[in-house]
Amino acid sequence: MEGKDSPKTAGKPIRCRAAVARKAGEPLVIEEVMVAAPKAHEVRIRIICTSLCHSDVTFWKLKDPPGYFPRILGHEAIGVVESIGEDVDGVTEGDTVIPIFLPDCGECVDCKSTKSNLCSKLLFEVSPWMHGDETSRFTDLKGQALYHFLYVSSFSEYTVVDIAHVVRVDPAIPPNRACLLSCGVSTGVGAAWRTANVEAGSTVAIFGLGAIGLAVAEGARLCGASRIIGVDVNSDKFEIGKKFGVTDFVNPASCKDKSSGEQVIIEMTGGGADYCFECVGLASLVHEAYACCRKGWGKTVVVGVDKPGARLNFSSFEVSNQNLIFPSLLNVTWTRNCSWMNLLHTREVSPMRYLDEPMSLLGKRTL
Amino acid sequence: MEGKDSPKTAGKPIRCRAAVARKAGEPLVIEEVMVAAPKAHEVRIRIICTSLCHSDVTFWKLKDPPGYFPRILGHEAIGVVESIGEDVDGVTEGDTVIPIFLPDCGECVDCKSTKSNLCSKLLFEVSPWMHGDETSRFTDLKGQALYHFLYVSSFSEYTVVDIAHVVRVDPAIPPNRACLLSCGVSTGVGAAWRTANVEAGSTVAIFGLGAIGLAVAEGARLCGASRIIGVDVNSDKFEIGKKFGVTDFVNPASCKDKSSGEQVIIEMTGGGADYCFECVGLASLVHEAYACCRKGWGKTVVVGVDKPGARLNFSSFEVSNQNLIFPSLLNVTWTRNCSWMNLLHTREVSPMRYLDEPMSLLGKRTL
Repeated sequence: MEGKDSPKTAGKPIRCRAAVARKAGEPLVIEEVMVAAPKAHEVRIRIICTSLCHSDVTFWKLKDPPGYFPRILGHEAIGVVESIGEDVDGVTEGDTVIPIFLPDCGECVDCKSTKSNLCSKLLFEVSPWMHGDETSRFTDLKGQALYHFLYVSSFSEYTVVDIAHVVRVDPAIPPNRACLLSCGVSTGVGAAWRTANVEAGSTVAIFGLGAIGLAVAEGARLCGASRIIGVDVNSDKFEIGKKFGVTDFVNPASCKDKSSGEQVIIEMTGGGADYCFECVGLASLVHEAYACCRKGWGKTVVVGVDKPGARLNFSSFEVSNQNLIFPSLLNVTWTRNCSWMNLLHTREVSPMRYLDEPMSLLGKRTL
Repeated sequence: MEGKDSPKTAGKPIRCRAAVARKAGEPLVIEEVMVAAPKAHEVRIRIICTSLCHSDVTFWKLKDPPGYFPRILGHEAIGVVESIGEDVDGVTEGDTVIPIFLPDCGECVDCKSTKSNLCSKLLFEVSPWMHGDETSRFTDLKGQALYHFLYVSSFSEYTVVDIAHVVRVDPAIPPNRACLLSCGVSTGVGAAWRTANVEAGSTVAIFGLGAIGLAVAEGARLCGASRIIGVDVNSDKFEIGKKFGVTDFVNPASCKDKSSGEQVIIEMTGGGADYCFECVGLASLVHEAYACCRKGWGKTVVVGVDKPGARLNFSSFEVSNQNLIFPSLLNVTWTRNCSWMNLLHTREVSPMRYLDEPMSLLGKRTL
């Protein structure tokens, strides 16, 4: 690593350290790599802080495509722009930015719409390359190309990202918290806020109080839910959950069996929670969440994404009397038109307060 | 049958003809049956017209519960109240009424809510009895009880129905059309109007142009959809569909293969229809509908209910980038608080116009 960014690095490759996934499921190797200068519409970012999302783990384990090796994983991060390629507007050297795995070209009908966050110009794929260019900006010291991950590859001191994947943020944001905003927090808050559109005074049950589930709780709290029930096999999660608005807790492992666990939630909510969120990525838990949801007007939102190959399996009869919604990717609202900060300001909530208080608990998830 | 209703029948059993399902899958038998006088909260109705819903056929074929025999099927009808039991308010002898399979007690939180149509006092089950009373109002001439169906059993000249399952209507409604309003039409229009909430100017694809699919088209037309694509293996359906607002037609059987059929719809809509409706009740067609739906903001609504035992099977990855909504039962809006007529008047559409024009095409479905 060459220390502080200086004009002399612009336009040249940078040698720095990265955590390289050499083989599926094997420990990442901290090694020196070369990071090419950004091409047109790209920026090179010095990563300040990156966090570990379970999707990194999922792809790290995948032996076959979309698992690719050697690869630089990581897609939740914050950094400072070291240099910019040609035709880059709105972002310049020294800007603090968050890279986002979902692109926002700012021009297509989807990016201009408030109903969609899936850019139709730069298609989101779990590709090992940059957009529209089957090349990598990373090589190891033997000259071998290293694959990208989700257009971010933040497990490196420097990375190159298309400007459609970059959002400028206030440099005062505590970096070890801000990095979580780029995926997990947006996904969870967006699930409560945008997909379910939780009504004030309603009841919510959240299955799995990991980072996503806690973010769902925060979203439900911001929407004014009156009761937010955390459901987790680890009872320690209740204390953490309280900071995000969780008011009640059920440990299914302490219940006699699956059905009595469901019964507890149905009784607590007088017939089932108005909104249930599956936040683990387990097909069986989708069924449990659905069973705990109120008939008639209940909505079950499936936020978790199970392993490739895992199947969600319902009979037509089962799913006929409440809403079951599959929206996973649709919740990530972190784009230039519709940014996290905008959303927070809409509801007159200070992002800094949000970041300083409950988010501090997530700090320990950062690498 | 005793001819015209007269005071002398009130309080006594009526002997009349009914089409009795004696065994699963075997032809209905037209025979004489006894219809008991209505108990408290019940009315006895002289059926003027009844239609055949595919759900009647489904249950007629079912050898095991919820298939029960001997049974009087039928749940789409219109009739005149012959006599009333004790504690019956709001409906009296001579009223023209539509019996509805979904109850509306008018008192519980669900019936008072505009968000739900699933009464929480009188639970909807595919039961062979009246509510809260494991008895039948029908016996054959040997004294054997005949099972009810969906609280309606309209394949009989007279039937007894709980008042929670009855809606008074204008007697001027053409009966051979009005009977369809109680299930199929409400389900289809409700799917477009309430579940999907089709936006004006949007594109819609409807898979299956039976009565439900045509009703979805009518709902989408009322909501202002700009393009309504009918998808059916019978090309004759296009002409019928036009009367309900269908603007374009695709016959998948004329396409090279399944995927090229999907491609045609994706191209017609510039990337997928904004709303897709599965109206047949085939798990495989749910997948096709989903594939034809626009990524980002698309909504696929599953209206059809497949056979018991049939499974809907998705991978988490598949369902991550648009909405898939399972609402079947939620679309039937025909209750006293939230009736079909109210809905039509809300949108300033005359129910009579609606009934006189496109509905006339469905007349031939009536028995």
